Amino acid sequence: MSVVVTRIERADTNVIDGLAHAGVATVHEAQGRTGLMHSSLRPIYSGARIAGSAVTVLMPPGDNWMMHVAIEQLREGDLLIAVPTSPCEDGYFGDLLATSAKARGCRGLIIDAGVRDVRDLTAMGFPVWSRAIYSQGTVKETLGSVNVPVVCGGALVNPGDVVIADDDGVCVVPRASAAQVLEKANEREAREEEKRKRLAAGELGLDIYDMRERLAQKGLKYV
Amino acid sequence: MSVVVTRIERADTNVIDGLAHAGVATVHEAQGRTGLMHSSLRPIYSGARIAGSAVTVLMPPGDNWMMHVAIEQLREGDLLIAVPTSPCEDGYFGDLLATSAKARGCRGLIIDAGVRDVRDLTAMGFPVWSRAIYSQGTVKETLGSVNVPVVCGGALVNPGDVVIADDDGVCVVPRASAAQVLEKANEREAREEEKRKRLAAGELGLDIYDMRERLAQKGLKYV
Amino acid sequence: MSVVVTRIERADTNVIDGLAHAGVATVHEAQGRTGLMHSSLRPIYSGARIAGSAVTVLMPPGDNWMMHVAIEQLREGDLLIAVPTSPCEDGYFGDLLATSAKARGCRGLIIDAGVRDVRDLTAMGFPVWSRAIYSQGTVKETLGSVNVPVVCGGALVNPGDVVIADDDGVCVVPRASAAQVLEKANEREAREEEKRKRLAAGELGLDIYDMRERLAQKGLKYV
Amino acid sequence: MSVVVTRIERADTNVIDGLAHAGVATVHEAQGRTGLMHSSLRPIYSGARIAGSAVTVLMPPGDNWMMHVAIEQLREGDLLIAVPTSPCEDGYFGDLLATSAKARGCRGLIIDAGVRDVRDLTAMGFPVWSRAIYSQGTVKETLGSVNVPVVCGGALVNPGDVVIADDDGVCVVPRASAAQVLEKANEREAREEEKRKRLAAGELGLDIYDMRERLAQKGLKYV
Amino acid sequence: MSVVVTRIERADTNVIDGLAHAGVATVHEAQGRTGLMHSSLRPIYSGARIAGSAVTVLMPPGDNWMMHVAIEQLREGDLLIAVPTSPCEDGYFGDLLATSAKARGCRGLIIDAGVRDVRDLTAMGFPVWSRAIYSQGTVKETLGSVNVPVVCGGALVNPGDVVIADDDGVCVVPRASAAQVLEKANEREAREEEKRKRLAAGELGLDIYDMRERLAQKGLKYV
Amino acid sequence: MSVVVTRIERADTNVIDGLAHAGVATVHEAQGRTGLMHSSLRPIYSGARIAGSAVTVLMPPGDNWMMHVAIEQLREGDLLIAVPTSPCEDGYFGDLLATSAKARGCRGLIIDAGVRDVRDLTAMGFPVWSRAIYSQGTVKETLGSVNVPVVCGGALVNPGDVVIADDDGVCVVPRASAAQVLEKANEREAREEEKRKRLAAGELGLDIYDMRERLAQKGLKYV
Repeated sequence: MSVVVTRIERADTNVIDGLAHAGVATVHEAQGRTGLMHSSLRPIYSGARIAGSAVTVLMPPGDNWMMHVAIEQLREGDLLIAVPTSPCEDGYFGDLLATSAKARGCRGLIIDAGVRDVRDLTAMGFPVWSRAIYSQGTVKETLGSVNVPVVCGGALVNPGDVVIADDDGVCVVPRASAAQVLEKANEREAREEEKRKRLAAGELGLDIYDMRERLAQKGLKYV
Repeated sequence: MSVVVTRIERADTNVIDGLAHAGVATVHEAQGRTGLMHSSLRPIYSGARIAGSAVTVLMPPGDNWMMHVAIEQLREGDLLIAVPTSPCEDGYFGDLLATSAKARGCRGLIIDAGVRDVRDLTAMGFPVWSRAIYSQGTVKETLGSVNVPVVCGGALVNPGDVVIADDDGVCVVPRASAAQVLEKANEREAREEEKRKRLAAGELGLDIYDMRERLAQKGLKYV
Repeated sequence: MSVVVTRIERADTNVIDGLAHAGVATVHEAQGRTGLMHSSLRPIYSGARIAGSAVTVLMPPGDNWMMHVAIEQLREGDLLIAVPTSPCEDGYFGDLLATSAKARGCRGLIIDAGVRDVRDLTAMGFPVWSRAIYSQGTVKETLGSVNVPVVCGGALVNPGDVVIADDDGVCVVPRASAAQVLEKANEREAREEEKRKRLAAGELGLDIYDMRERLAQKGLKYV
Repeated sequence: MSVVVTRIERADTNVIDGLAHAGVATVHEAQGRTGLMHSSLRPIYSGARIAGSAVTVLMPPGDNWMMHVAIEQLREGDLLIAVPTSPCEDGYFGDLLATSAKARGCRGLIIDAGVRDVRDLTAMGFPVWSRAIYSQGTVKETLGSVNVPVVCGGALVNPGDVVIADDDGVCVVPRASAAQVLEKANEREAREEEKRKRLAAGELGLDIYDMRERLAQKGLKYV
Repeated sequence: MSVVVTRIERADTNVIDGLAHAGVATVHEAQGRTGLMHSSLRPIYSGARIAGSAVTVLMPPGDNWMMHVAIEQLREGDLLIAVPTSPCEDGYFGDLLATSAKARGCRGLIIDAGVRDVRDLTAMGFPVWSRAIYSQGTVKETLGSVNVPVVCGGALVNPGDVVIADDDGVCVVPRASAAQVLEKANEREAREEEKRKRLAAGELGLDIYDMRERLAQKGLKYV
Repeated sequence: MSVVVTRIERADTNVIDGLAHAGVATVHEAQGRTGLMHSSLRPIYSGARIAGSAVTVLMPPGDNWMMHVAIEQLREGDLLIAVPTSPCEDGYFGDLLATSAKARGCRGLIIDAGVRDVRDLTAMGFPVWSRAIYSQGTVKETLGSVNVPVVCGGALVNPGDVVIADDDGVCVVPRASAAQVLEKANEREAREEEKRKRLAAGELGLDIYDMRERLAQKGLKYV
């Protein structure tokens, strides 16, 4: 049952970088409010905004052996998406693994478990979104799998999907629809830019979006 | 049942600014250890210390329509206090609403739910205290109310009450007692300043506060 | 039952400082993956890395009287380890107590409860690891004990044990084994330094640690 | 600041008993989906369904002295609503206090904290809704208040309000509107009874409530 | 984006009933320790052990409109698997919906949200596994989908998959592998039965499973 | 580092049974409000009240191999106290292990992790207090230790200590002080019995405990 899938399809680099630029909140809206991971996954430092192709790794609780296997599968521009097979906060990943992943071109880690050496990771500029910061060590005894579908932070991730992460959290976009979602995200941003200016000038959303009549019909009373 | 109360009483601006200067911990002590919101409400960035008059908004879970209605009721120096009618972590508020609220003079948001676009909000200097950072989008389908009494973070807030927020959390002071609480807060600060100097010089609280005898009476043994 | 133990043994200063330099993750591994406190204890600001001799204080919920008693027992290089006798998030400690503790040479506080005045504590450079940031005030009515064994963050701490704390969390090393743990931590760091270079150069952990054969034996398939 | 209000207004007994019969879910709907306490308050045993007039008690964390003061204020048909001034799971209440409260005619306890002796309380048939079952003992050192407004389980309770509790949780109805809410609850129950029969016979809600057209207008597609 | 898929494939009835008989723990082991939902999904009463074909429903937070749509799609032997699009504890389901679902042959509900009327549901013998018991009412304003893949309790469920639920929790078996998993579950039960007898007679697992040598090789010391 | 201590001292059987009869709340009070485990450890069924000598087992996360080793060390009247080395909810224990433990005379299990097969365990009358009910399977790959000191539910347990468990939770009494604690528990029960009668007859705690004067001195006002 333990497999490493060595060939996965990836989305176009320009599409991936475009999605990173749009950010999690916009992308999540652009694909119909889907794909968001739980709010319990938080960045270890503020300000990073990245996207990449998902290389997934499924690991037993308290055992990070498969991390080494997964790192060999990483290419320039990938993100590592790591999930324990049962809930676990252990520190699966630290500065040595980050050094290795970075050398392969990896842009960051999303892990539904714990991470450690966060001071070093911050100094290296290697961003991580995790459920916990916890030093608890792990063993290397039991196999898992690499590049199989996983559920991370409550969202389904297939290998090669585009994952976007920033201070707002983490969102996954299926590879097949990435280009289309980027297009919608760009349209959304363009529309918002114009509204941002009007709102900054003091106009009200009630008027810009023509909400007053519908609010009255629903029964809103001013007293 | 959905109402917008358009006229509320506010506290004196000097009192509000004095309470901001005193900070949450001091104000909370000065009014007899009451008014504190739960520790689950945390700032999206460190260092902000504000106070303002509460404009309250009560919203259905996953529906931020009333945010637009509430923003029209904001005046220079107000804080927006937003509460869902049942527990919800969705991202009710982002950079467009913040742009609009800021244009009306709003000093910040306290929300017992989620917020998004935190990178933009940080860059704008618009402080938010929230239960979660979460991008989950909301709809605009169901009414709520503006400027009714709400329970936020476990504390009762009436419209026009003074709300103080800093890195320690959030505290609410009833409008009617705001001036009196400020006076007590100032007295407390004055007393503390003198003690801070003595403690910094190496004197012990045991001596400054004359605790040794009472400790011995209660039965404390040194071994 | 309420006692203050006034004489405790402390570890050698050089050993303590060596353990601080090694950091929590390395020390925790060096002593066989033991001694780690729960991940719910988090630093109030990033970047501090300290170690010191434990002066412990056991306090009733919502009552910080014993803090003053404990501070008298602090010496240069100590850490204060504070635990409530039942779960409590109240703000037991703020800037006045920090001023006093710092004047005695205390390097920081680990508290399995709440802390307040975090803006001031950050400005003073007095680091705290706590379960919550919460202003809720406390009383001074009931006794506790100082320098008795306590369970903090799920780990047993004896007075005089060495406690290490950084961005990864908090770890306790029994005084008697501190020198030996430091030795192992230094060996571990030396080994890691060489591996860090090889990994940074693009070598894989699979090869450096000779894992390929064992993975195949366990049944890992590449597809 | 510590007061005991000895005279409170209570609702009509028939209204209270009618609300108990309707149950929490129906009453909560009948008063416009308000008044519900958090889902963290759970019954210590299944099957109880009660209502009564609220006698409130506000207590320091870890201190149950005021329980004795509150019990003197109880009358036949009352419920005790107990709240700590800061979050606390201690076991404030056990079989001795229950014996005393029952002797005064008290119907049960709602406590936003811990309870103990639950085997004895179950045998006595004294129902309790609590945040935790926890034996942690409390002291009798610090005052609180009786029959002041409190926030319990996130809901505002004024002394004399009607509180309803069953396996679904706890709901509070302001005394002034209790009769009107009962009327609406009874209407709701009558309407539901007829629908229950039609649904049990196999008719669909889609048809009974005429939902098909509105679903199609909103864009629902069958594939 | 809101669809109702009206034709789904279901597993064989004998296979489904066999999986119910085996129970969650055995089935979960038989399919390689996969498919388990989070431990936060708990039964509203003890003793039920059921299995059925998954009819899935995805709903907005606080809006149970799609429940009515989903019920029309239920057939004899189905289970309803209900998931909100963002975390929500509201009471989406009560005795009227249960009456309707039961009339269609539905065996029970798994819901990653709240449920209410649990006393009535218990009396009806309609089992529910939920994240919360909570009366908070919902609206009927926004669409969702029926019979699309969902993530429930952290596990992926496709429509027509077999879902097993008992006092241990909830497990999902993909429809395509259900017969094979049942076979393995039966083999496992047969093996366990013989071991249960030997263990009851006082034999040790250390001997039955021949563990002593391997433990010694790994380094276990008896002192 | 992995050891099995085969000889431990146990307390007198009459003392153990006396402590079981007194129950958790009384014992916890009788030994000065210490020894209580966290409220997150809950019984899998109601009504059990047991005590026994602690046989402790420390296990890696997700690995229950040492359970078999520990069972060999059990004698008539023992309790098994099981703790993972890092937080883990996996189902370490089910009906086969319970059959084996029961055959050795074990009275029950306290586990700071998950348990499964709870329907069978209930039918067997084998009581368990656990952090979770969760079927997640475990492996048998890594060693731990038996009969070493452990921290379970936040409380320190030494092998041979007396552990008491009932519907109120779990409490540990050091072996050396067990007889003395039983004596105090019996005195406490005797005192309480007389008070229970007076309270049931309608007397108030305010009078029985002579509280009125002290309340007035502290400043309590009746209004």
